[in-house]
Amino acid sequence: ARIVRSPRGPALSAKSWLTEAPLRMLMNNLDPEVAEKPGELVVYGGIGRAARDWDSFDRIVHALKTLDGDRTLLVQSGKPVGVFRTHADAPRVLIANSNLVPRWATWEHFSELDRKGLMMYGQMTAGSWIYIGSQGIVQGTYETFVEMGRQHYGGSLAGRWILTAGLGGMGGAQPLAATMAGASCLAVECRPSSIEFRLRTGYVDVEAKDLDEAMVLLERAKAEGRPVSVALLGNAAEVFPEIFRRGIRPDCVTDQTSAHDPVNGYLPGGWSVAEWEDRKLRDPAAVAAAAKRSMAEHVRAMLDFHRAGVPTVDYGNNIRQMALEEGVGDAFSFPGFVPAYIRPLFCRGVGPFRWCALSGDPEDIYRTDAKVKELMPGDAHLHNWLDMAAKRIRFQGLPARICWVGLGDRHRLGLAFNEMVARGELKAPVVIGRDHLDSGSVASPNRETEAMRDGSDAVSDWPLLNALLNCASGATWVSLHHGGGVGMGFSQHAGMVVVADGTPEAAARLERVLWNDPATGVMRHADAGYPDAIDCARAQGLDLPGILG
Amino acid sequence: ARIVRSPRGPALSAKSWLTEAPLRMLMNNLDPEVAEKPGELVVYGGIGRAARDWDSFDRIVHALKTLDGDRTLLVQSGKPVGVFRTHADAPRVLIANSNLVPRWATWEHFSELDRKGLMMYGQMTAGSWIYIGSQGIVQGTYETFVEMGRQHYGGSLAGRWILTAGLGGMGGAQPLAATMAGASCLAVECRPSSIEFRLRTGYVDVEAKDLDEAMVLLERAKAEGRPVSVALLGNAAEVFPEIFRRGIRPDCVTDQTSAHDPVNGYLPGGWSVAEWEDRKLRDPAAVAAAAKRSMAEHVRAMLDFHRAGVPTVDYGNNIRQMALEEGVGDAFSFPGFVPAYIRPLFCRGVGPFRWCALSGDPEDIYRTDAKVKELMPGDAHLHNWLDMAAKRIRFQGLPARICWVGLGDRHRLGLAFNEMVARGELKAPVVIGRDHLDSGSVASPNRETEAMRDGSDAVSDWPLLNALLNCASGATWVSLHHGGGVGMGFSQHAGMVVVADGTPEAAARLERVLWNDPATGVMRHADAGYPDAIDCARAQGLDLPGILG
Ligand SMILES: NC(=O)c1ccc[n+]([C@@H]2O[C@H](COP(=O)([O-])OP(=O)(O)OC[C@H]3O[C@@H](n4cnc5c(N)ncnc54)[C@H](O)[C@@H]3O)[C@@H](O)[C@H]2O)c1
Ligand SMILES: NC(=O)c1ccc[n+]([C@@H]2O[C@H](COP(=O)([O-])OP(=O)(O)OC[C@H]3O[C@@H](n4cnc5c(N)ncnc54)[C@H](O)[C@@H]3O)[C@@H](O)[C@H]2O)c1
Repeated sequence: ARIVRSPRGPALSAKSWLTEAPLRMLMNNLDPEVAEKPGELVVYGGIGRAARDWDSFDRIVHALKTLDGDRTLLVQSGKPVGVFRTHADAPRVLIANSNLVPRWATWEHFSELDRKGLMMYGQMTAGSWIYIGSQGIVQGTYETFVEMGRQHYGGSLAGRWILTAGLGGMGGAQPLAATMAGASCLAVECRPSSIEFRLRTGYVDVEAKDLDEAMVLLERAKAEGRPVSVALLGNAAEVFPEIFRRGIRPDCVTDQTSAHDPVNGYLPGGWSVAEWEDRKLRDPAAVAAAAKRSMAEHVRAMLDFHRAGVPTVDYGNNIRQMALEEGVGDAFSFPGFVPAYIRPLFCRGVGPFRWCALSGDPEDIYRTDAKVKELMPGDAHLHNWLDMAAKRIRFQGLPARICWVGLGDRHRLGLAFNEMVARGELKAPVVIGRDHLDSGSVASPNRETEAMRDGSDAVSDWPLLNALLNCASGATWVSLHHGGGVGMGFSQHAGMVVVADGTPEAAARLERVLWNDPATGVMRHADAGYPDAIDCARAQGLDLPGILG
Repeated sequence: ARIVRSPRGPALSAKSWLTEAPLRMLMNNLDPEVAEKPGELVVYGGIGRAARDWDSFDRIVHALKTLDGDRTLLVQSGKPVGVFRTHADAPRVLIANSNLVPRWATWEHFSELDRKGLMMYGQMTAGSWIYIGSQGIVQGTYETFVEMGRQHYGGSLAGRWILTAGLGGMGGAQPLAATMAGASCLAVECRPSSIEFRLRTGYVDVEAKDLDEAMVLLERAKAEGRPVSVALLGNAAEVFPEIFRRGIRPDCVTDQTSAHDPVNGYLPGGWSVAEWEDRKLRDPAAVAAAAKRSMAEHVRAMLDFHRAGVPTVDYGNNIRQMALEEGVGDAFSFPGFVPAYIRPLFCRGVGPFRWCALSGDPEDIYRTDAKVKELMPGDAHLHNWLDMAAKRIRFQGLPARICWVGLGDRHRLGLAFNEMVARGELKAPVVIGRDHLDSGSVASPNRETEAMRDGSDAVSDWPLLNALLNCASGATWVSLHHGGGVGMGFSQHAGMVVVADGTPEAAARLERVLWNDPATGVMRHADAGYPDAIDCARAQGLDLPGILG
């Protein structure tokens, strides 16, 4: 199989850093340290790809290497379709992945187009070239767990444990985030290779040979007053009910299997992984049907825990919807993690801000870590996060950092990084981006926009405006996707990445993009009537004519 | 009721022509000469609105009047939600209308949000402020009828007649386009006011008191060798079957009632208009059910004509889908007008290019007419069109012209108009735009992208890329809509307008936008494998990495 890894160091293979950056980030998405199945161009999240096929990959690389500073490359579902004349402040790459006219927006129709070579699934950051490995999600998961402790356990998860499943690209962050938040974690995963990957990269502490051993490890950790994360090989659809039957009660229950994709993302109960891989190709409809039946079992067990008083949340993989479609009428009686824990952050434009050192040098990230602390001296929670991250998160591919900050801070950090590049304090430029799961960039009624105050969950004008505004503000690349996180039909979302290459032109763009992007999130939540967002908009002086009046 | 009319003349009420232009075009969309129901902010196409409500309208106007040259106004389903700092080459307005996450993209959910005041229906050019009255569609309809004559009647429709229905904002263009193409026309319309409007503005020649009189008028016209257009008050669901029963056989059959919107767009058979208006509010679900039953009758009659050998086409209102949902299994056995007649034009980026004189002076349009002829000396068909248009199309609101031209010509015309403004040959700047129904700007599997060669009908990456690229190229305003033409769930599409204010900066933008915009259409059709599009792409030197290789 072909092995792709981003170039490192200060030498350009493209004509400028504005085109070198998407080139490196595309390649970095496929780095074997980063991607789940790099040979198939699969980055994470089921079949989330970085390019449609290897031919498209090669042509994108060639196009980026030769792209001039006033040109823009268009990418349609992972295929480079056109190069057009724009201008210096326009994005260098515009991306649209997996978008389907609503009446046809199903996995069935998508798969037909995928088989014909007309589409690919972009997930969120896979097809938009800003995936940074499991670390990209660690802080989001950590913040979620911390908030769980605040809401349900008097401020802390110390001495508690979380039951979950799925140790894939995103789900693999759970055990580490749990221990960072002071909790132990039991993660059920059906694929030995996924467990090995997380053990090797330090995301999970230990593998238990069976449930009994797992429980012993959890008990011992509790007794010793230090958290442990335990992986258990098994099928969540079988293990979750078994745990409930045994009378075991975790302190929190959730799940991050790829339930959003019934063909490729969820192993049906009673099947071996080999059988699954084989039948995915031969009989996808049968796989989907069996997987959804198992998801219903899985959700029934989650409902049992929920009714038993255990805080239980859907972790953004649409498993409640799948169970609902299988006849589990009360599937939505436990909440999603966004309305439960994250929305207050979104109201202030706080979300998964991230940056990546194109030099490949970890020192560059440590320097930016220090800069963040310097610029945000009063934020103890953030300092604590950065210290833990530096100590416990191993870099995958190009060194990167995630740091949930909001409107008013993001652009300050971006400008500071740009100055560091200008002054030679960093060895090469950095890219600054975020997940599509953010405050203003997504409409996803079973996840990010679940249970909005005004009922506007399904209104997708917002992410489209977010993408257009980032394009108008001078982001380096902008993307519009459908179906990320929760699968076909259930979401529309936008991504952006902007390069800090140390020039004054970049500074102007950074200031606009990193202000406007989170501001659209505050705007969207203010429009929905959240007082926190309205207060934030006023405090930051946003001009929102139809909202603030 | 409030009366809105665009200002005329060279004096600015906003800070520059780049913001004066959207201001005038918004107001022009609501001019009583232009809009179907200006009091309700309804421009055309069922409930296609220019702004969400009067408060939003006032706030948009205020925002535009005060908008600086480096700011961008965001409009979400007709409501102005934010003003952000961008830059001089960025669009001044970004618009997203009626967009819904696919699983929720139905009229039912839309109407719920509409009632709550959270959304409006933007149709295509209603919510994107570039509707120019029925003239905007006349040429498209004319080109369609001419092509019918070529394909079915040895080159000409002379002595033939077309049966259709619907004399609304778009449908009202049919009788005029028919007589321009040499054919007579019988148009069934259920609303006396719509007939009066078309008589008054010269779009239809005469009203018949009943079907017998209509047939006499058509016969007489045939005998005298000159075409006539006849309006007939009635319900198409009743009149079409009656015509078939009487053994009358038109030479072509089509329809432009607003079938895409079963609640607001189609009068159920046996109902009075007053009853309809009343029950729309009280019991929308019952109205929709009754309307769809009548549409099924209507389509059954169209199928009768089709089987009897009469060329029959769906004219882009989704009536076949409605009938299909009512159990008419073979509803799609007659084609839509795009695959039947328009796609070859789209392959070359030819589409409904249009411009509008912000001065309000018809002379400006006549001068641009002459300029178009001068720049395209070899195109006899186009010259003929322009002569007819000047003679027979009455301006509605600000004087405007439509002219189907393609890649390679649009930017030449735009640059020439800009020079005319610079030299003072025109009394004020012009805006240049198009319908969303164009070559690269729409995904609509029952209409513009019906029966694509490669099966990519439902792929909406293309219109999203079109919008992003127009944004990156410096269009003055850019819009992304859902549900235009064919209704909720069935389409996604993009609009753009660019101002020619006579400055060199505008020239640079015009050159990029008016090249790139039709080029995305050629790209999209080349990717689908149309040889005409591939040839055009090569001839024009497009750089399409994954397509041309
Ligand atoms: N909440 C968030 O912030 C967030 C962010 C990104 C993704 N997600 C969602 O979380 C889910 C997981 O994302 P990912 O990137 O880790 O996906 P992935 O496909 O990389 O990993 C899924 C893992 O689940 C395992 N699995 C599948 N079926 C199983 C079963 N029955 N029992 C046990 N393990 C099983 C797979 O072997 C795989 O390792 C996706 O649905 C994704 O959309 C959530
Ligand atoms: N093909 C195209 O190029 C194109 C372009 C734009 C719009 N359209 C579609 O054409 C349709 C018409 O658009 P419009 O802007 O004229 O809409 P409109 O709502 O302004 O007009 C529709 C007209 O049909 C009449 N009508 C409704 N039910 C009737 C019935 N049962 N019998 C007779 N008359 C009836 C109404 O009274 C009204 O005058 C829409 O569905 C629109 O989406 C097509």
